Amino acid sequence: MLQLTILGTNAASPAHKRHPTAQVLSLPYTHFLIDCGEGTQIQMQRYRVKINKLKAIFITHLHGDHYLGLIGLLSTMHLIKRVDALDIYAPPDLADIIRINLKCSDTRLSFPVHFHPVSDKGQEIVYEDGGFTVETIKMNHRIACVGYLFREKPKKLKVLIDKLPEEVAWQIPAELQKGRDYYNEEGGILYKCEEYTYRPPSLVFAHCSDTLYNEAIIPQIEGADLLYHESTFLHEELEKANMTHHSTALQAATIAHKAKVKKLVIGHYSARYKDLQPLLEEARTVFENTHLAIEGEKIHIERTEL
Amino acid sequence: MLQLTILGTNAASPAHKRHPTAQVLSLPYTHFLIDCGEGTQIQMQRYRVKINKLKAIFITHLHGDHYLGLIGLLSTMHLIKRVDALDIYAPPDLADIIRINLKCSDTRLSFPVHFHPVSDKGQEIVYEDGGFTVETIKMNHRIACVGYLFREKPKKLKVLIDKLPEEVAWQIPAELQKGRDYYNEEGGILYKCEEYTYRPPSLVFAHCSDTLYNEAIIPQIEGADLLYHESTFLHEELEKANMTHHSTALQAATIAHKAKVKKLVIGHYSARYKDLQPLLEEARTVFENTHLAIEGEKIHIERTEL
Repeated sequence: MLQLTILGTNAASPAHKRHPTAQVLSLPYTHFLIDCGEGTQIQMQRYRVKINKLKAIFITHLHGDHYLGLIGLLSTMHLIKRVDALDIYAPPDLADIIRINLKCSDTRLSFPVHFHPVSDKGQEIVYEDGGFTVETIKMNHRIACVGYLFREKPKKLKVLIDKLPEEVAWQIPAELQKGRDYYNEEGGILYKCEEYTYRPPSLVFAHCSDTLYNEAIIPQIEGADLLYHESTFLHEELEKANMTHHSTALQAATIAHKAKVKKLVIGHYSARYKDLQPLLEEARTVFENTHLAIEGEKIHIERTEL
Repeated sequence: MLQLTILGTNAASPAHKRHPTAQVLSLPYTHFLIDCGEGTQIQMQRYRVKINKLKAIFITHLHGDHYLGLIGLLSTMHLIKRVDALDIYAPPDLADIIRINLKCSDTRLSFPVHFHPVSDKGQEIVYEDGGFTVETIKMNHRIACVGYLFREKPKKLKVLIDKLPEEVAWQIPAELQKGRDYYNEEGGILYKCEEYTYRPPSLVFAHCSDTLYNEAIIPQIEGADLLYHESTFLHEELEKANMTHHSTALQAATIAHKAKVKKLVIGHYSARYKDLQPLLEEARTVFENTHLAIEGEKIHIERTEL
């Protein structure tokens, strides 16, 4: 199971006690931070996300509401004497911003930062470890902007022990676990791998930050277990959405529907909406399994077990 | 009357629901912001300080807890379509930080920023309007750092109407208001200016940001109506204070005492102190009229009327 903790949900400026964008994706062994608006470290304290468990930070683009909390967060990591390296994936210019802030405060961080400049072309694998890959999704925004797709690597086969007769099941045949058929010489029976094993599905979380409605992303995010898609406006503000290169709730839901994702979370709300219910209702007219991003909430990204 | 609104009180990083440094000095006609740690715009919303009433921002130095909220604040002013010019007084390098952030987000602000680089030598008048001057105070910190002294200009004379007999008081003699004696020809009486007028005292607020204990500032801040002096540590942590170029509560109070100020407010608390009472008690052993900076509190800087 993965877990997404919502730390900031507002577009542009803080309003109605909502903060600029930030989300934490918790893997079984580590945290990824996706965007880091002003006040993210304070939100992490509030919602008890351990700063030192952050392994990597993914920044979608360099509008202030998506990165202005980063320098403060790095500074706090330094003050609590972090040692482990931190990976930052972001548009190239962020390196200059980090560098000048550290220079002005005469700070030499207590930990190494590995800065990975990310192109806005999309569909590049920028991160890979034993269990995950992260690839970029091309967004269409006013400035260079990417989404990120977090994809679990294929899982190991699981043997369906309950289906096997007891004399075989007590010691699970290695062949089945390796994906091969197993022939039980004593019993003279062939156990076909495809009948007695299953591969747990790999989870996919697609984070689509600020973007115009863009169907070109659909093949890449198709079938995702969770899609976060910005939804800055109601569709009655389509003109405003187009002008500012943002999406409406209806458009976010249309992408979710067409991409056949399992669940949609919308966020990045315009300050004009104190009440978010109309955004949710509009999205649900197109895609029923839509949820609002609410600060402090933890959204489970679960696999459907057989 | 002036009013100081405390927006952030913690040193280095946010902790115990305390935020990095920021204070708003409210004059009768405008607001000055002194330092702008991360989350300042959120604190301004929380405590109902109108962002658009800010005329000028004074930054003491370029440690993150004193300026990292600035870019977000400028961005919000831009988004709410501010038109009036904004004056920023700060160490010179902040201009580069502002410039690179605006460049990366492709933002051309809706209002002009007048950036005034401030030297760390101190004792320079950097701001002047009809009612106020602001001069720098030399701090002794790890990087270039200044305090700011806000000084009301001399007030106009006020005539003591109640002391004057009714036949003269109904129309206050212009001579008295201009500082000259008044001779009432009808009554044949001389009203001496010094007896029938008084000049309201001009208020002085001294803001002493991060600094080592430094008696050299005393002549400049002497007699201030309010002194804010950082007080990061208890005196038992003197070594730590010296190492990080900060002051202890005892030292802040000693400066207040020696400078014969009217009132002391301490702040910029180390995250090690959840309970601030010991800092207050330590300071009060030396300077009784000491108060803790508490976020959201408004401190009146009042003149003593005759």
